[in-house]
Amino acid sequence: MIDLKFELPARIFAPIAYIFFASALPVIAFGEQLSRETDGSLSTVETLASTALCGIIHSLIGGQPLLVVGVAEPTVIMYSYIYTFAISSDAVGKKLYLAWAGWVCVWTALMLILLAVFDACNILNKFTRLAGETFGMLIAVLFFQQAVKGMVGEFSPTEGEDEKSPDHSFQWLYVNGLLGVIFTFGVLITALKSRKARSWEYGTGWFRSIIADYGVPLVVMAWAALSLTVPRQVPEGIPRRLQTPLPWDPASMGHWTVFMDMAKVPPGFILAAIIPAVMVAGLYFFDHSVASQMAQQKEFNIKKPSAYHYDILILGITTLICGLIGLPPCNGVLPQSPMHTKSLSVLNGQLIRKKMVQTAKESMMQHDSKSKTYGRMEEAFVEMDGSAAPSAAKELKNLKEAVMSEGSKEGGESSFDPEKIDAYLPVRVIEQRFSNFMQSLLIGVSLMAMPVIKKIPTSVLWGYFAYMAIDSLPGNQFWERIVLLLITPTRRHKILERPHASFVETVPFKEIAKFTIFQLIYFLICFGVTWIPVAGILFPLPFFFLISIREKILPKFFQPNHLKELDGVEYEEIEGDPMRTRSMSLRRTNSRDAGFEEEAEVFDELTTGRGELRLRSASVSQERSNQVYPGNFLDG
Amino acid sequence: MIDLKFELPARIFAPIAYIFFASALPVIAFGEQLSRETDGSLSTVETLASTALCGIIHSLIGGQPLLVVGVAEPTVIMYSYIYTFAISSDAVGKKLYLAWAGWVCVWTALMLILLAVFDACNILNKFTRLAGETFGMLIAVLFFQQAVKGMVGEFSPTEGEDEKSPDHSFQWLYVNGLLGVIFTFGVLITALKSRKARSWEYGTGWFRSIIADYGVPLVVMAWAALSLTVPRQVPEGIPRRLQTPLPWDPASMGHWTVFMDMAKVPPGFILAAIIPAVMVAGLYFFDHSVASQMAQQKEFNIKKPSAYHYDILILGITTLICGLIGLPPCNGVLPQSPMHTKSLSVLNGQLIRKKMVQTAKESMMQHDSKSKTYGRMEEAFVEMDGSAAPSAAKELKNLKEAVMSEGSKEGGESSFDPEKIDAYLPVRVIEQRFSNFMQSLLIGVSLMAMPVIKKIPTSVLWGYFAYMAIDSLPGNQFWERIVLLLITPTRRHKILERPHASFVETVPFKEIAKFTIFQLIYFLICFGVTWIPVAGILFPLPFFFLISIREKILPKFFQPNHLKELDGVEYEEIEGDPMRTRSMSLRRTNSRDAGFEEEAEVFDELTTGRGELRLRSASVSQERSNQVYPGNFLDG
Repeated sequence: MIDLKFELPARIFAPIAYIFFASALPVIAFGEQLSRETDGSLSTVETLASTALCGIIHSLIGGQPLLVVGVAEPTVIMYSYIYTFAISSDAVGKKLYLAWAGWVCVWTALMLILLAVFDACNILNKFTRLAGETFGMLIAVLFFQQAVKGMVGEFSPTEGEDEKSPDHSFQWLYVNGLLGVIFTFGVLITALKSRKARSWEYGTGWFRSIIADYGVPLVVMAWAALSLTVPRQVPEGIPRRLQTPLPWDPASMGHWTVFMDMAKVPPGFILAAIIPAVMVAGLYFFDHSVASQMAQQKEFNIKKPSAYHYDILILGITTLICGLIGLPPCNGVLPQSPMHTKSLSVLNGQLIRKKMVQTAKESMMQHDSKSKTYGRMEEAFVEMDGSAAPSAAKELKNLKEAVMSEGSKEGGESSFDPEKIDAYLPVRVIEQRFSNFMQSLLIGVSLMAMPVIKKIPTSVLWGYFAYMAIDSLPGNQFWERIVLLLITPTRRHKILERPHASFVETVPFKEIAKFTIFQLIYFLICFGVTWIPVAGILFPLPFFFLISIREKILPKFFQPNHLKELDGVEYEEIEGDPMRTRSMSLRRTNSRDAGFEEEAEVFDELTTGRGELRLRSASVSQERSNQVYPGNFLDG
Repeated sequence: MIDLKFELPARIFAPIAYIFFASALPVIAFGEQLSRETDGSLSTVETLASTALCGIIHSLIGGQPLLVVGVAEPTVIMYSYIYTFAISSDAVGKKLYLAWAGWVCVWTALMLILLAVFDACNILNKFTRLAGETFGMLIAVLFFQQAVKGMVGEFSPTEGEDEKSPDHSFQWLYVNGLLGVIFTFGVLITALKSRKARSWEYGTGWFRSIIADYGVPLVVMAWAALSLTVPRQVPEGIPRRLQTPLPWDPASMGHWTVFMDMAKVPPGFILAAIIPAVMVAGLYFFDHSVASQMAQQKEFNIKKPSAYHYDILILGITTLICGLIGLPPCNGVLPQSPMHTKSLSVLNGQLIRKKMVQTAKESMMQHDSKSKTYGRMEEAFVEMDGSAAPSAAKELKNLKEAVMSEGSKEGGESSFDPEKIDAYLPVRVIEQRFSNFMQSLLIGVSLMAMPVIKKIPTSVLWGYFAYMAIDSLPGNQFWERIVLLLITPTRRHKILERPHASFVETVPFKEIAKFTIFQLIYFLICFGVTWIPVAGILFPLPFFFLISIREKILPKFFQPNHLKELDGVEYEEIEGDPMRTRSMSLRRTNSRDAGFEEEAEVFDELTTGRGELRLRSASVSQERSNQVYPGNFLDG
């Protein structure tokens, strides 16, 4: 299955670096979070190791090699609960924590494999926005909670530190706290700004894309570097930095042999491990499948078929391996997965375009006929794309028209400008395993850089958590509906003026309010569950219920068409606007540099924090804006 | 001349409070700046006292009572230079500083009075944007410099403080510095956000207008309050707060009797005082007249005639008084002066409208004829407005048409809705002396609140300085042209999409660049002068030169039409777009609350940081956008 022989353009390393940074940073942050929750039993070393390992395995034998895997927040939360549960009983305790967690993984792996075997992926169709976005909101709130807890924590001493150290004098703690506030807000604000870089009016397009693509990691590095400039009089360890052993320290060696301790876990607990396993299996099953779905959305024109069941099988295997060697397991991650596909399609677009323009120009030099010129261009495309000539011919229909219409208008020759073909190029992705493999490998390599990574102040990570929370909200319709409730009636029209979900126009405001308030209450319940000390392990349960609530109960309270608008299934929605793919390519400009950036901008608009596609383009909304309920909606 | 009998609406106190806050805050900030520059010889007490005194005098006998006066940045700079000069010679020294400054005021007053007598105000016509905006930029940069100097200063001990105090241990200085950073950036960021409050989508219109109108003072208070919550372990005096004596302390009593020491100043220095006096006179003359001009721009339909010369005379007198009692003198301030007029016109608009709608409705109840209804409305307007019937009839032409057209269309009755008359109401200002008098009085009263004002941390003021600097940039075409040079060519079209100055379309880019670079270099020279220790006192000189440079030299390098576009005199430009007044009133909405806010929004768009009116409305620019040079401009 490994087709690394597939010959690749040198510029493939741009997407690789892009995805590497995008996935390394959260994994580091989660590592720190985990090490606090588990008193250092697991740390950044383990999360990075696991991400690298699972990533490499998936990239080599995975069914959808474009899917990016990593240690994600749900894993961290579950592992934290598993820890609290483990230490709550002497039979297990901190010593056997990883062994017991190993058992959880074993059970989880078993269930995942069963799910894969029994074609369970059809359940996905029942997985609507309602559950997905409520869960997304929970993650966002937990991120934010972590950020606040962390920042406030900078003012108080950490346990396990020796009380004598100067860091414990009030003054130094206060200094540490103030630095924490500065770094947390500094990272949050600068990171949010950098996200908007593409629409900046200053700096070259090249510079702006760099900032927009690598801005957040750059921001984190910049603030980490700044934190090294504190005056010499400030004692070592202020500001507080990442607390993680080095990969080669004995502290991070212990877990490799966990499987040997697993027999020591009392049978009762081995069985009890089934409960968390059900939760983890459920979470992984959905997260992994959704991420995979996002990575192969229609408009990417992926040619290789999807392989949900096979990938769930692989997931089961990687989970098993992680469990046995005491690593927190990985699953498909958002938004990195769609980011990965996206970056590959952008790159490919540029390459194909370059080749075709070249051919066209040569051909026009020799004053070939239009048809001959076009013929050559099509050849070039087929060659680059490796697709069958007939299908290509179909896809290039628009291009053909453009070439043929040459000269028919005034201006003759000039009327066809090969530079302008972007508008007619179909979206293509370089489908291969190399980029995913390399980025996973880089994550493995970054373990060697741990001494440098340890220099990151914890407060910088809290800022990053806050950023992740805020960045995940736009595009989450649950959030957008909450905002809608807060907007004063006189200002609601403003929503219609910018890209917005269709329900805003088609569903009466009162219905939207009803639906949102129900969702809000349900969300608060879910959030409440996470606070229950040990039973918190059951926090995914309400989300599983939600699916049947959506199926059985909600239809009793809402009209089906309203419900469909408010809670359409993702792929339904994507079909909602067939024009999008077109409009995307139409937006391309002819300077390659600008092309890259514009293209990316289009994606920025279309893909949301979680990498989902927005529901409607502005144009569509306008044309519909004086329809159905808008009046109702405006005064509602 | 005092016409306080003029009967006033109770709601007049809204504009009063608005202007009071708008002018008190900078005066406090300048006071702190001055007390640092003059080692406490002058402080917030004196700046407030002077502003109150001059304000009351001007409000009672001033020619244009809408003009707001106060201690402004130029005064602070000049007084700082005068101080450095004074202490540089033993003959004067710190002891006779105020006495010598008194002499400067005497000479200044003399010159101002002469300028007034000899109708010098015609010189104003030579005072173009070039000089005005270069000066505005200098002030902005000096504000920023003050902010940075101040914030950095928070890390180092202040002189005169006893070295024993715990505040001098490195730790506490560092804490003070960090708090300084937090407060400075906190104030800056929150203040900038609050400015945008009107366009927020959350909160009621009422709430948004409050934030947008009083946001900055509220922000300062909020941060000052927050600064009181530092833990008890932090020693007194951290964070550092305003260093000013109380008004009733002997320290702030000395200056009242300065005129008695003035004889002690050696004759040579009395003569030397002429040099700074020339500078001050020049600065005041221009600032005062421009502020006055801004306070009575065409679209306010001010009915009382302007009185530039008379006001310069009053300015001379107040300057003399201030000099004799050792207060820093005042002059007309921007943007408070236009803000004052604006707030009064907004208020009046609401009152007139209310009355007329009422009359119209009554009349329609009785099924009066259209003409009768209109007749009554006109009466109501005349009564409210106190203007002569014929002129009113002319101004209400549109309203008349609207009323008469009633029923001619389908929908009969409903086709004329008195609620919708806003569009036809001419802009009117409540011209009176009361509001200015009251706000000046309040500033005087606020002296009693000095114990509270002293609680403001200095770092909060540095943030405020940074805010003032940034807030003064938009609308400054010099700044906008610098930005234009930084925008990448591919993005320049974005400028055309939003309201912008006409030169963007009518002047080729290369010319704009040439002009801007010249201005930039000249600006740097002016800025350089301010750094020269004692000769810095001459810093206004280059600006005076600039006027003749503009007149004699620039025309040699630029085409007259380009020059006119790039450097039109303000009132020329204001005539540039006759549609504006119309479009302003057209934008009013019928809910009074919303009306207030929308109206204000319009002003927000039209008036710039310095309270000037923008050159073009978007609409005009679009209609012209494919004219003359745009191509040239886009690729230029």
